[in-house]
Amino acid sequence: MDITIVKIGGAVIENPDDLAQFLAAFEEIKGAKILIHGGGKDVSKISSALGLQTKMVDGRRITDAETLKLATMVYAGFINKNIVAKLGVNGKALGLSGADLNIVQTKKRPSEPIDFGFVGDPFTELVNTTELVALLDNKVTPVFCAITHDGQGQLLNTNADSVASIIAQAIAIAGHTVHLNYCFEKTGVLTDIENDDSYIKSLPVADIEKLHQSGIIHTGMLPKLDNAKYALANGVNSVYIKHWKNVAQNMGTQIC
Amino acid sequence: MDITIVKIGGAVIENPDDLAQFLAAFEEIKGAKILIHGGGKDVSKISSALGLQTKMVDGRRITDAETLKLATMVYAGFINKNIVAKLGVNGKALGLSGADLNIVQTKKRPSEPIDFGFVGDPFTELVNTTELVALLDNKVTPVFCAITHDGQGQLLNTNADSVASIIAQAIAIAGHTVHLNYCFEKTGVLTDIENDDSYIKSLPVADIEKLHQSGIIHTGMLPKLDNAKYALANGVNSVYIKHWKNVAQNMGTQIC
Repeated sequence: MDITIVKIGGAVIENPDDLAQFLAAFEEIKGAKILIHGGGKDVSKISSALGLQTKMVDGRRITDAETLKLATMVYAGFINKNIVAKLGVNGKALGLSGADLNIVQTKKRPSEPIDFGFVGDPFTELVNTTELVALLDNKVTPVFCAITHDGQGQLLNTNADSVASIIAQAIAIAGHTVHLNYCFEKTGVLTDIENDDSYIKSLPVADIEKLHQSGIIHTGMLPKLDNAKYALANGVNSVYIKHWKNVAQNMGTQIC
Repeated sequence: MDITIVKIGGAVIENPDDLAQFLAAFEEIKGAKILIHGGGKDVSKISSALGLQTKMVDGRRITDAETLKLATMVYAGFINKNIVAKLGVNGKALGLSGADLNIVQTKKRPSEPIDFGFVGDPFTELVNTTELVALLDNKVTPVFCAITHDGQGQLLNTNADSVASIIAQAIAIAGHTVHLNYCFEKTGVLTDIENDDSYIKSLPVADIEKLHQSGIIHTGMLPKLDNAKYALANGVNSVYIKHWKNVAQNMGTQIC
C-alpha cells in the first residue's frame, strides 16, 4: 500500500482558519493517509490557570501525573476530537491515542539519569501495524495524538515528531511505501530564516551535522532531522519538511 | 449478532480501585460488547478551579463553548483514554466519540424555548450501525464517551444514558440481538433506598408512572427509565438497571 503520513504542529491547530485551510489541503492527498498532531499551548495555559507548577530539570519539562492528565485531556480530547469532527474524509476520520487498539505502545523512559516522569519512548516493534493497516484498508483516516501507553494500563506522553517517525518506520518495515511529511509554518529548512524562498530543496542526511555546525541549521530543528534520518534508515521512501499549506505537494525540504 | 451494551456512570470512574474491579467484571461478558461511560465531577472541579461560571437556566446546566471544551477534554480525553489503556480485551479496546467514524451524529437542540447551548439530541437514524457492527465483527470493544457531533464540524455534549439507549435501539433496528445494561452504585430500582436487597426484579414499563406517583421511584431515575422504555419499544431484547459489580450477571431490575 502507498501511505502518506503527515505530522502537524501545534500552531496551526490553535488558529481555526488555519486549521480549516490545512484540513482542506490534507484532504487533497490521494490514497491512504495518517495525520499526527502536536499539542499547542493549551496545556501550559490551563496548567498556569490552575496554578500548577511546571517542573523542569536541566531546562526540560517533567511530565508529572497532573501534567499527563492535562496533556491527555487536551491532546486526546479537545484537539483530537475537534480535528476529527472537522475533517471530512467521507465520515471516515478516526481519532486515536496510542492506547486505542494498542497501536502505539511505548516504554516509559528510564528514571536514570533524569526522571522525566510519564514519558514514553517509541519503538518500531511496538507499533501494531496489523491493526493500523487494517484501518487504512477499510478507507479509515487515522488521526493520532501523541499520547501513548505502556500496555499495562499507564498512559504516557510522547513526542509527536517521534510518533510520526516511528509509525512511518514500522509501516515501511512491514513492506509498504511510505511518505513522511513534517508540516510547520515555514517552507522548509531555510538558509536564511527571514526568507521563505531560501529553503533547501534537497538535504542529504550526511550534511546535517556540517550545516548545524556552520549555524545554518538551528538546534531546535535537530530532533526533527534525527527523526527524518531514522525514518530513511528504516526504509521510509520520502521525508519532507514543509509548510502545512503545501501538505499535498512535493514542495519543501526533502531529506535524503 | 448478540451484543451487550453497558453504560457506566461517573462515580465508578473516579475511584481507581472500583474502576479496575468494574473493568475486570466487564471483561467477563462473553461476545460482542460496547461500553459507554459518563462523566464524573472533573468538569465541575476544573471549571471551578478555572473560575468559570456554571450557567444554569431553570435549574438546568447550559453547555457554553468553554463547558463543551472542558467536557470534550475530560470525557473524550482523560476518562476515555484511561479506560482504554486499562481495559485488556486483548488490546482491542477502541475509544470513540460520536464524531469518530461518524458513528453517533446528533442534532443540536433547538434554541427555543431554552437555549441549552452545545447539546446534541440523538436519533436512531443518525447512528452509523454499519461502521459500529464492522468494528464488533473485527472483535473490537468500542468505548464511547457521550461527546457527539452534528456532522458539520461541531462537537456536541450529549446525555450518556441517551447515547447508550440510542446505540442499543439502532443496533436492534438493524436486526441484532441487544442487551442494554445501566450500571450504577445500587443493585437496581430499590423500593427502600436504604436496603440494597429491596430491588424490584421485574419492572413493567406500564408500572413506572404509578410507582413514581406513589414515591417509590425517584424523579432522578425517570430519565434512565424513559431511555429503557424507548429501547424496549425499538426492539432491544433486554434492559437491566443494576450494580456495576453485577455487570456480567443477569441481576438487578429488569425493565420489561
